[in-house]
Amino acid sequence: MSETPPAEPLAAQAAAQASAARAAQRALGSAPPAARTRALERLAELLGEREQALLAANAKDLVAAERDQLAGPLLKRLGLTSAKLATLREGVSALAAGSDPLGKPLRKTELDEGLVLTQVTSPLGVLLVIFESRPDAVIQIGSLALRTGNAVLLKGGSEALHSNRALVACLQDALRDAGLPAEAVVGVEGRAAVGELLEREHDIDLVIPRGSGELVRSIQQSTRIPVLGHAEGVCHLYLDAAADPEMARRLAVDGKCDYPAACNATETLLVHEAFLGQLGPVGAALRDAGVRLHADERAQAALSAAKVECELAQPEVWGREWGDLVLAVATVDSIEDAIAWVHRHGSGHTDAIVTEDPAAAERFLSAVDSASVFVNASTRFADGFRYGLGAEVGISTGRIHARGPVGADGLLTTRWLLRGQGQAAGDYGPGKRPFTHRALELS
Amino acid sequence: MSETPPAEPLAAQAAAQASAARAAQRALGSAPPAARTRALERLAELLGEREQALLAANAKDLVAAERDQLAGPLLKRLGLTSAKLATLREGVSALAAGSDPLGKPLRKTELDEGLVLTQVTSPLGVLLVIFESRPDAVIQIGSLALRTGNAVLLKGGSEALHSNRALVACLQDALRDAGLPAEAVVGVEGRAAVGELLEREHDIDLVIPRGSGELVRSIQQSTRIPVLGHAEGVCHLYLDAAADPEMARRLAVDGKCDYPAACNATETLLVHEAFLGQLGPVGAALRDAGVRLHADERAQAALSAAKVECELAQPEVWGREWGDLVLAVATVDSIEDAIAWVHRHGSGHTDAIVTEDPAAAERFLSAVDSASVFVNASTRFADGFRYGLGAEVGISTGRIHARGPVGADGLLTTRWLLRGQGQAAGDYGPGKRPFTHRALELS
Repeated sequence: MSETPPAEPLAAQAAAQASAARAAQRALGSAPPAARTRALERLAELLGEREQALLAANAKDLVAAERDQLAGPLLKRLGLTSAKLATLREGVSALAAGSDPLGKPLRKTELDEGLVLTQVTSPLGVLLVIFESRPDAVIQIGSLALRTGNAVLLKGGSEALHSNRALVACLQDALRDAGLPAEAVVGVEGRAAVGELLEREHDIDLVIPRGSGELVRSIQQSTRIPVLGHAEGVCHLYLDAAADPEMARRLAVDGKCDYPAACNATETLLVHEAFLGQLGPVGAALRDAGVRLHADERAQAALSAAKVECELAQPEVWGREWGDLVLAVATVDSIEDAIAWVHRHGSGHTDAIVTEDPAAAERFLSAVDSASVFVNASTRFADGFRYGLGAEVGISTGRIHARGPVGADGLLTTRWLLRGQGQAAGDYGPGKRPFTHRALELS
Repeated sequence: MSETPPAEPLAAQAAAQASAARAAQRALGSAPPAARTRALERLAELLGEREQALLAANAKDLVAAERDQLAGPLLKRLGLTSAKLATLREGVSALAAGSDPLGKPLRKTELDEGLVLTQVTSPLGVLLVIFESRPDAVIQIGSLALRTGNAVLLKGGSEALHSNRALVACLQDALRDAGLPAEAVVGVEGRAAVGELLEREHDIDLVIPRGSGELVRSIQQSTRIPVLGHAEGVCHLYLDAAADPEMARRLAVDGKCDYPAACNATETLLVHEAFLGQLGPVGAALRDAGVRLHADERAQAALSAAKVECELAQPEVWGREWGDLVLAVATVDSIEDAIAWVHRHGSGHTDAIVTEDPAAAERFLSAVDSASVFVNASTRFADGFRYGLGAEVGISTGRIHARGPVGADGLLTTRWLLRGQGQAAGDYGPGKRPFTHRALELS
């Protein structure tokens, strides 16, 4: 990290860049769609032309990471390859070929003859994206910001310093080559700079942390800027009295084992007491998949009867995000108890019911207050790609702006455009001209 | 205020009520639509049945206010009358008759055969609404919260204590009579209670301050909970080189004089230098309407030539929200200068251009980064009722969640409901089952 300048100048520089990003964003967002498309096309080209230089920059980071004994999975995420770059180019080209999301009319109302109001999509503004390790994120997020007319400040992990610099340069050069302001993309380096930026609520509209729950929580607690993300994914799978036993087995194993570190992995199994007699095979399948179980007394008895070993659950296992092949198992007396349990111990991310009873299914769907609520499907489906949203910005457990898996829509806001012929507001009202308020077709 | 208990118990009570409101909200939001409709119908009935008691409670507040020498306009807003109550009943009945906004599908996608995702509207959660003086707001906001399935903590001004208590009781009794939890509506009293609530970001999802910019600003600065509102309305009217002089005159007078205290009143007139020769009649009309002008040197010269007196503008007049019959007048050399001026000095609320040049109109509409952007219409049109949104929750200058005039939609979020037949996520992916991602008709 000897190439990193001292913290204070970096922080001051980041603040100045954030201010400049606002002006650049306005130029980017109000440019013709073709200019943003051209920048994306140019970005795909540059990623091809500079492949060797990008891999060389990445190799520097990899050498340093091996020297610093970075953990295996992190090392794997840090590495760029020709194949990863090809995937990135494809993603960028798809965005370039896709339709422009800006200026799309969402609502059109005639207020009076010759006075037409249109609500249109607009860029959100200036984004601060904080991510760890994976340099691919620079291009994935940078290209999405570009398509949606947003400026973006990108703070990657210091272990990917050289890779990130080289990728940020591709984004900036692509903007420049398309006649757009390169200042709309900023590479941020150093913790002091992030601290400085998190205080600049007038320059930055949204913070998107991509990484561990710890990272998200620490950012949420240190800024007044809205944060899009989820600190925790404590997902429940509820096996109803009317659950199909084979389906229960399959969804418990998939929910827990498909990718245990993911935020949409199942962390607690709730079991209706009437299902306890059929819990054995579910527990056995989980055990065979290498899952350690922490069960309450009733569930433990049911599992023991089926010769499935488990630990007796201590109070701290409820609502815990294991992120590993460990599962808590609790018994409930009714679907209402299950719903109350989810509200008390869950994180509002994703919760699922397994049942053959349509009334139970609809009750669960209507009552559970989580971003994603499933019937007879694995909690692991909660994901922007699986939902068909295209690129995923993140998964939000917040209730404001965007909730659940967030696609490009989460990077947009709206403006209200009114086209008149000289109308004064004082001419309308009781005893004066009435409004027509006629909904018009969106063109 | 002798009836107000000491601050600390009030604060503790408010905190407990906020926690209880979350549970009550979940019951309210997942109840059948007919139950919420019944509660609204009952509210309209109660407002009629209790008219004498409501007016008597209000009379107590009015006596105290006169004793405390409350200013005339505040006194007028504080007063309830039979006519005001009738208007409130009409509004509540209209909401009861209207369609239920919850569970409305916004997007429906088949992920695979027998695996259907629906994004549906849901209540936002628990709202804290802080307002001044006008007790009507209790019913307007309370009924809107009820229709949208939200719990609401209502903090009115202490000068309306008795009126607010009586109105909150109507809301609570209406809920109870409809078999819904009365705890979904809470009357909050005392500053200490508000301070306590503003720290409870896990119990409260959105703060809506309705009142002065000072109130909004102070709340924004003292909470991490998202705040919906606008601290300032610094609206510009730009007279383009191609402005129609008569229209310029009319829109300047309406924008400034129709209701100078409103947030959508015009505060600065921007004048293209090519229009200066026609500024005289605009200035004369403003002067005749009682407006004091602060103009820059070029505008002052143009006004003087037309025998319109004005003060020479000092730097602090730019970007100032007068809230009164005062207007700043600045000269710009081009439409681009006007746009840059709006971005530098405006508050992103509402800005308008007067022009007969379609290219200038479209440039202004696409480039000005404000919640509302108008062509040839008064800035005073920026208003939820005028936009046809029905009840107005507030006007937001924030870019997250809702922007500009906000109707009932601003009190909603979404949930993602997935109905499957036992699908596991591990069965999908490269080399396995593909997703269909087929858009389905909204039913």
